[in-house]
Amino acid sequence: MLNNIKWLFRSGDNSRGCGEDREIVVSSRMRVARNIDGVPFEPKMKVQDAHYLINLIRSVVETRFKGHYLDLQKITHLEKESLLECHLVSPAFIRGDKPAGVFITDKGTVSIMINEEDHLRIQGLTCGLDLPYVSSEVFHIEETIGEDVQYAFHETYGFLTSCPTNIGTGLRASVLLHLPGLVFTNEVEKVLTGAVQIGMAVRGIYGEGSEIKGSLFQISNQHTLGVKEEEMIETMTKLTHMIIDVEKKARDVMLTKARNEFEDKIFRSLAVLKSARVINTDEVLNLLSAVRLGAGAGILKDITLDVVNEILLVSRPANIQLYFGEVLEERERDIKRAEYIRKRLGGDGQ
Amino acid sequence: MLNNIKWLFRSGDNSRGCGEDREIVVSSRMRVARNIDGVPFEPKMKVQDAHYLINLIRSVVETRFKGHYLDLQKITHLEKESLLECHLVSPAFIRGDKPAGVFITDKGTVSIMINEEDHLRIQGLTCGLDLPYVSSEVFHIEETIGEDVQYAFHETYGFLTSCPTNIGTGLRASVLLHLPGLVFTNEVEKVLTGAVQIGMAVRGIYGEGSEIKGSLFQISNQHTLGVKEEEMIETMTKLTHMIIDVEKKARDVMLTKARNEFEDKIFRSLAVLKSARVINTDEVLNLLSAVRLGAGAGILKDITLDVVNEILLVSRPANIQLYFGEVLEERERDIKRAEYIRKRLGGDGQ
Repeated sequence: MLNNIKWLFRSGDNSRGCGEDREIVVSSRMRVARNIDGVPFEPKMKVQDAHYLINLIRSVVETRFKGHYLDLQKITHLEKESLLECHLVSPAFIRGDKPAGVFITDKGTVSIMINEEDHLRIQGLTCGLDLPYVSSEVFHIEETIGEDVQYAFHETYGFLTSCPTNIGTGLRASVLLHLPGLVFTNEVEKVLTGAVQIGMAVRGIYGEGSEIKGSLFQISNQHTLGVKEEEMIETMTKLTHMIIDVEKKARDVMLTKARNEFEDKIFRSLAVLKSARVINTDEVLNLLSAVRLGAGAGILKDITLDVVNEILLVSRPANIQLYFGEVLEERERDIKRAEYIRKRLGGDGQ
Repeated sequence: MLNNIKWLFRSGDNSRGCGEDREIVVSSRMRVARNIDGVPFEPKMKVQDAHYLINLIRSVVETRFKGHYLDLQKITHLEKESLLECHLVSPAFIRGDKPAGVFITDKGTVSIMINEEDHLRIQGLTCGLDLPYVSSEVFHIEETIGEDVQYAFHETYGFLTSCPTNIGTGLRASVLLHLPGLVFTNEVEKVLTGAVQIGMAVRGIYGEGSEIKGSLFQISNQHTLGVKEEEMIETMTKLTHMIIDVEKKARDVMLTKARNEFEDKIFRSLAVLKSARVINTDEVLNLLSAVRLGAGAGILKDITLDVVNEILLVSRPANIQLYFGEVLEERERDIKRAEYIRKRLGGDGQ
């Protein structure tokens, strides 16, 4: 069973490039919420409705797309957590108790959750900044499915959703930003407050309720009603570009005013990752933050952002267990995590 | 002028071996205090007496031994501090204001301070545990000088000294011990209290009033009256062997019970030393403590205790400036220190 989603960890899917400004934008994500006309919405949905929906959608997507279907009731707790750590599903999805499943495309960039809060949540993900690309991938799938099923739609409100905050386009876009410069210059709060004022939500790397760690911030749109898809993508993209600009300036200040101290932090962080024998996820996040900065600034010439992203992902508690194919206690995880990172970075092997 | 004592840093004097148990005993030291009959003692000594004594002793030692004489009034503050950091002179010696000087033998292992608190302080130093060897070196010089001058001696009290605590043999012996195991098992206080109870003093690496840092402890005898030289050396040696035994047991416990955590600390410490761009002396002491432990336990196979000792010495604030031949502000020192350590350990050179 542990091997069910191990294919997620195959090294780097290079068939598709990344978006822009990767040294600041870790990833761009988007999802649409859709419900099927004539099938009861959450919370009125019954178990037989859930099964009906799964069968209906599976038959459509498995005919139309290449990918893997995972039945949430048939995979382990660890595999569910891993899907979450890979940002392929939502926390609500894996914590629900009704029949549900997720279809993940072969490239691993689009996931279709069946019986999340809505009947369907189609989510796309790419590295760097490229919301139009993600949008095109998501809507290609949304439209293709829409050829075979009838989405619940209201002429005034638009697409109907289980929760009113998603009504309209049912669209939520987000970018995961790495902002060590703004954290250093103490401007991050000001900048992000500005984002909130124009209708964005700011969260930690694992979404709602998650702590801010490793200078990583997730920014997403709050409203879906009365905003056209294209406008929303444009607004998000413009806002992100503005933040990229101020972050770049802050990094210049940081690396000019305190060059030695930052090089020190960057080189030490890489050295610790390459040599640690025991390491927890929070420390990895913090060290990777400095390494990502160093890689982006050309200070660490041998480290690519791909490697940084991979380590960020594989180091997570569930992923590290799937990576080694073993169920591991916390202490064992900290040891195995250090082993994996040393190996991945070509650190000392003793 | 800065080059006056640069010869002290020549790499490794291997003409003479080290004492035993080097992984625990950093160094063994001994000094005798002597005064010249007929010349006023401190504090009654006048400037002309001081000059007289310098001329007298210099003429003896420069005829009899190979070495360097440094006139305390002609060297820089930095050079004085460096002599102190190298454990070649006492704090009181360099802070005094009367004419004074120090003769250091070619091997750099014996120093003869003229006009310290006593007319003469002859001090010997070796790595590892070997008080009899240090004693023989010191007394060889003491006796040779005694052939040409008359030491102040009293039939009942023994050798007379400026301060009564040194009267008798005028002998003080000390060992510098690295006790991370006992620090880890929380037994260090108990063990060192035992040493104090049998008449020893326990101090930090830089003697009286210096803080305990890097798990380094200096143990010395408190009394000099009524104890024969050989007995004192035997007592010190036996006590040191006892402490070595408990330290070894503590290290076994530490490395058995928390192997991963200690390997982690050891490898991280070395990695940080190899990659830091800015580093202060306290951090160096702490990191070297872990590296010394790792080298002693065979965990770090490429690191010798010689290198650890050299870095400990050269990293000191005055020494690092003499090493680079420049007067450096604190911040510049931290950068240059990191540069030196990276180079010395073959760390990354960017």
